[in-house]
Amino acid sequence: MSSLFVRTLREDPVDAEVPSHRLLVRAGYIRRAAPGIYTWLPLGLRVFRKVEAIVREEMDAMGAQELQFPALLPREPYEATNRWTEYGPNIFRLQDRKGGDYLLGPTHEEMFTLVVKDLYSSYKDLPVWLYQIQTKYRDEARPRAGLMRGREFVMKDSYSFDVTDAGLEASYAAHRAAYVKTFDRLGFDYVVVRATSGAMGGSRSEEFLASSEVGEDTYVRCTTCDYAANVEAVQVRPPAPVPYDDAPAAHAEQTPDTPTIATLVDHLNEAFPREDRPWHAGDTLKNVLVVLKHADGTREPLAIGVPGDREVDQKRLEGMLEPTEVAPMDEAELARHPALVKGYIGPGALGADHASGIRYLLDPRVGEGTRWVTGADVPGSHVVDLVAGRDFTGDGTIEAAEVRDGDPCPNCDDGVLETARGIEMGHIFQLGRKYAEALDLKVLDENGKLVTVTMGSYGIGVSRAVPVIAEDNHDELGLVWPREVAPADVHVVATGKDAAVFEAAATLAEGLSAQGVEVIYDDRPKVSPGVKFKDAELIGVPTIVTVGRGLVEGNVEVKDRRTGERTEVPVGEAVAHLVEVVRG
Amino acid sequence: MSSLFVRTLREDPVDAEVPSHRLLVRAGYIRRAAPGIYTWLPLGLRVFRKVEAIVREEMDAMGAQELQFPALLPREPYEATNRWTEYGPNIFRLQDRKGGDYLLGPTHEEMFTLVVKDLYSSYKDLPVWLYQIQTKYRDEARPRAGLMRGREFVMKDSYSFDVTDAGLEASYAAHRAAYVKTFDRLGFDYVVVRATSGAMGGSRSEEFLASSEVGEDTYVRCTTCDYAANVEAVQVRPPAPVPYDDAPAAHAEQTPDTPTIATLVDHLNEAFPREDRPWHAGDTLKNVLVVLKHADGTREPLAIGVPGDREVDQKRLEGMLEPTEVAPMDEAELARHPALVKGYIGPGALGADHASGIRYLLDPRVGEGTRWVTGADVPGSHVVDLVAGRDFTGDGTIEAAEVRDGDPCPNCDDGVLETARGIEMGHIFQLGRKYAEALDLKVLDENGKLVTVTMGSYGIGVSRAVPVIAEDNHDELGLVWPREVAPADVHVVATGKDAAVFEAAATLAEGLSAQGVEVIYDDRPKVSPGVKFKDAELIGVPTIVTVGRGLVEGNVEVKDRRTGERTEVPVGEAVAHLVEVVRG
Repeated sequence: MSSLFVRTLREDPVDAEVPSHRLLVRAGYIRRAAPGIYTWLPLGLRVFRKVEAIVREEMDAMGAQELQFPALLPREPYEATNRWTEYGPNIFRLQDRKGGDYLLGPTHEEMFTLVVKDLYSSYKDLPVWLYQIQTKYRDEARPRAGLMRGREFVMKDSYSFDVTDAGLEASYAAHRAAYVKTFDRLGFDYVVVRATSGAMGGSRSEEFLASSEVGEDTYVRCTTCDYAANVEAVQVRPPAPVPYDDAPAAHAEQTPDTPTIATLVDHLNEAFPREDRPWHAGDTLKNVLVVLKHADGTREPLAIGVPGDREVDQKRLEGMLEPTEVAPMDEAELARHPALVKGYIGPGALGADHASGIRYLLDPRVGEGTRWVTGADVPGSHVVDLVAGRDFTGDGTIEAAEVRDGDPCPNCDDGVLETARGIEMGHIFQLGRKYAEALDLKVLDENGKLVTVTMGSYGIGVSRAVPVIAEDNHDELGLVWPREVAPADVHVVATGKDAAVFEAAATLAEGLSAQGVEVIYDDRPKVSPGVKFKDAELIGVPTIVTVGRGLVEGNVEVKDRRTGERTEVPVGEAVAHLVEVVRG
Repeated sequence: MSSLFVRTLREDPVDAEVPSHRLLVRAGYIRRAAPGIYTWLPLGLRVFRKVEAIVREEMDAMGAQELQFPALLPREPYEATNRWTEYGPNIFRLQDRKGGDYLLGPTHEEMFTLVVKDLYSSYKDLPVWLYQIQTKYRDEARPRAGLMRGREFVMKDSYSFDVTDAGLEASYAAHRAAYVKTFDRLGFDYVVVRATSGAMGGSRSEEFLASSEVGEDTYVRCTTCDYAANVEAVQVRPPAPVPYDDAPAAHAEQTPDTPTIATLVDHLNEAFPREDRPWHAGDTLKNVLVVLKHADGTREPLAIGVPGDREVDQKRLEGMLEPTEVAPMDEAELARHPALVKGYIGPGALGADHASGIRYLLDPRVGEGTRWVTGADVPGSHVVDLVAGRDFTGDGTIEAAEVRDGDPCPNCDDGVLETARGIEMGHIFQLGRKYAEALDLKVLDENGKLVTVTMGSYGIGVSRAVPVIAEDNHDELGLVWPREVAPADVHVVATGKDAAVFEAAATLAEGLSAQGVEVIYDDRPKVSPGVKFKDAELIGVPTIVTVGRGLVEGNVEVKDRRTGERTEVPVGEAVAHLVEVVRG
């Protein structure tokens, strides 16, 4: 400790919002260099390297091959896939001295695709699984929580290349299994949640989220079964069709001054009271209008019908339509559609076949035979007893309604959903042929025919794992590292002023090092025991050994940082005892 | 080999000028991503990682501590040291989404200085030696030779921090010793040459150059002693003073139409023939005029006096004056100094005390008592028998004259210099207090007084080492890796179509892997033995084992890639034999 390049701080850094950030700075693991850009100090780098080693071991064990692309990349491949434009302000762009355009790679789909195209040409070469562990760059609008959302960070990204969809399934399954092994070793709680793969749709996608209250990602899980999904990926189970043979015919009613769901429900209960139960928002069908901004610059209006007791969830909506951008429809745009009566818009005016011609997508809850109160497309009037499938249909369904605690589980019969928070640590998904098509990656199949390759994409946030582990492994005194990623195995503290103590402590530290045990030895002569213990707790090495007063009886004290359990061990047996503790 | 991500090429890549570049591409180690920017394929990455591990081991062994700075750096610290401007077009600059200025770090002096300032405050904390192994960026005007001069590359850079000059000397010596160990392990010939440290002057600086004909750096070495120096760093031994009591007085002579050294020498031999030997260019003193462009924008004329048989070496001159830029004096500037007569400029008009007031620096060969013919500052006239120290003096000396093969060695009495070429692989030098002063890095000394820290700077080209090793370890068939950095220990080739051969080869490969030996196993079923052998020679693993025809007699063939030596080994003993070969 007298020569280790570290300084612990008693005060929290002012910009740190979450415990892991505070503790990693205070314990001397990292320092901020610029917003979202950090320096790894020696202790931090040790933890980072252990995380990196675990990720690499598991990738190698599954048979993936490591290579490394540059971080500074030419524009052209990203132009071919349109991502040079699509990334908008989220990537760092620069020019070289000749005016050539470059970017700092945020992900490397293009480069992986091109290198396989360069080297391989036959189905016999596939499948191949390639990965890199590499520094990546994203110009985040709001970097936060230290290393958790940085602008320079390290990711493991891998890609699988297959000829067939079944091959992709197998490659995906192999990665999923390797990820489970990796995350089991890293030492934090996590959950695997279903995710969307945006506009690519249909293909499988899962995220590995670290369970954490400070996480940015919200997901839902079932209180009964093991279902867990990103909010964007929740797929509502459509209700069974409701018979409607006996249903009354739809009838328009005067509902003056009811432009909102709340005013409408009040009016219904007053003017048309129901015997069995009062009207409520869930009886109404709300039609929300938005405008899609497609990548090619065109704009398209879209109507979404959801039960009146639910809002449209902007993130779920965007997730379904990605990479198309979505904006609310403004008054000017609305005015261009005379069939739409604000506050009283109904299915009668919506859909490809109707007055407005606006595409109309329905929430899955609006199933065959369900009955609704909705706008009559006339000011101050609503239609009652409108039956889906009889009186109206949409142009399709969309999962855009908000997901709420207590919603029925889509996966089991008894459970309900509850929301929880997490940090995205891994993402696996079936890319399909998008990049292979854009960059013309084809191989000859068994029949000598050129076929487009299908790809899987698999990422792990390697530098992010450090704060995530810290988030899940700390107490009020400091960090509590799991053994496999700790910056050292044993922290030896020499206390007092007695030369014999320092001699015994140094001998112990050397003895441990000789056995391959990694030691931090606090040899500082003029620092009080209190400060030394505080530093040891803060730094969080799993085993803390105190050589001090007990030495006169021939003992040292071995303390487990996590449990606090203390054991007196004869100094002569300390090395053997600690090797046993460290090796488990 | 059937699944390894590699494709060997029979043709040289068109852009490859040097053998290492050709072979690393052909053998499937690297691929170009953009000019001066390369992708490491799996084989290349393995070699790179082994080089990296050697560098790291030796840095750790000397007691240096590893940390890691970001590559994306804010402008401010580089502004404080003026390097944001000084680097000119040689660095990549970019802006983030908020318009903040950033650069991709070419070296990290500022960051190291600032982190020590952040953590340390007392002389007791020093010395400290810090290093990182990190991706760096330089926008080279002419990237060349593959990885040898790239725009994205990996360097180990370290810095020492000391309070005293003696401390810096010790830190420098420790780094020098670690570098010798490192380069001895990496497996290429190298030479340690004296180097300049530019305008910082005075302090020690040495380069570790890989001896190579394809190197960009020219250095000189003594044919007799172990002297070696960068051309910029050669310091001429000044001649012993020549007695001039009996020398004739200087006399001006008419030398019409002799504005050049050649015309002057011809005229002297015609008009004033010498008895003992003819006049030659070395008898004349040539005065060269340049203009210095200082960093603060000011310009200063400078005159340099060198023997007429030598040119001023622009690189040596710039090396002495760095970071000031040097340009020849143009006609317009010359016209502003009426005392200077073009073609006939002499010491009579030069120097702070003379007509022009231009600073006048002399080559060390213009020593006390030496006699010269030089311009008389009158058109068509030169002064003969002008004696240095009697008739003129300069304002100082400068090492700017060219260095030539056959020049006397500055270090010994018998040797002469010869030029050789090399590739800069390492550079160690004493930075002194320049950065510490610019960034205000001070610590309290023993007396409680704030003192500025003195720094050493030490670099190794880690990614560059891969082509450098290849350059020194190849033959006409391919690469010949030294064992310590080879991508594998043993390359097992199965030949023929016999299932028993493939079975035996697979068993051997597995047996070796189980012993921790790294194996490439060529299991390709339909590839001819000729192609397999060619690939094995090209890839260059140190030991090649053929399992083939000999198997019927129970033997495999073990071949040393470097010597070509072949040994028949019973298949049952092959694992043990090869473990012995690999472990040495």
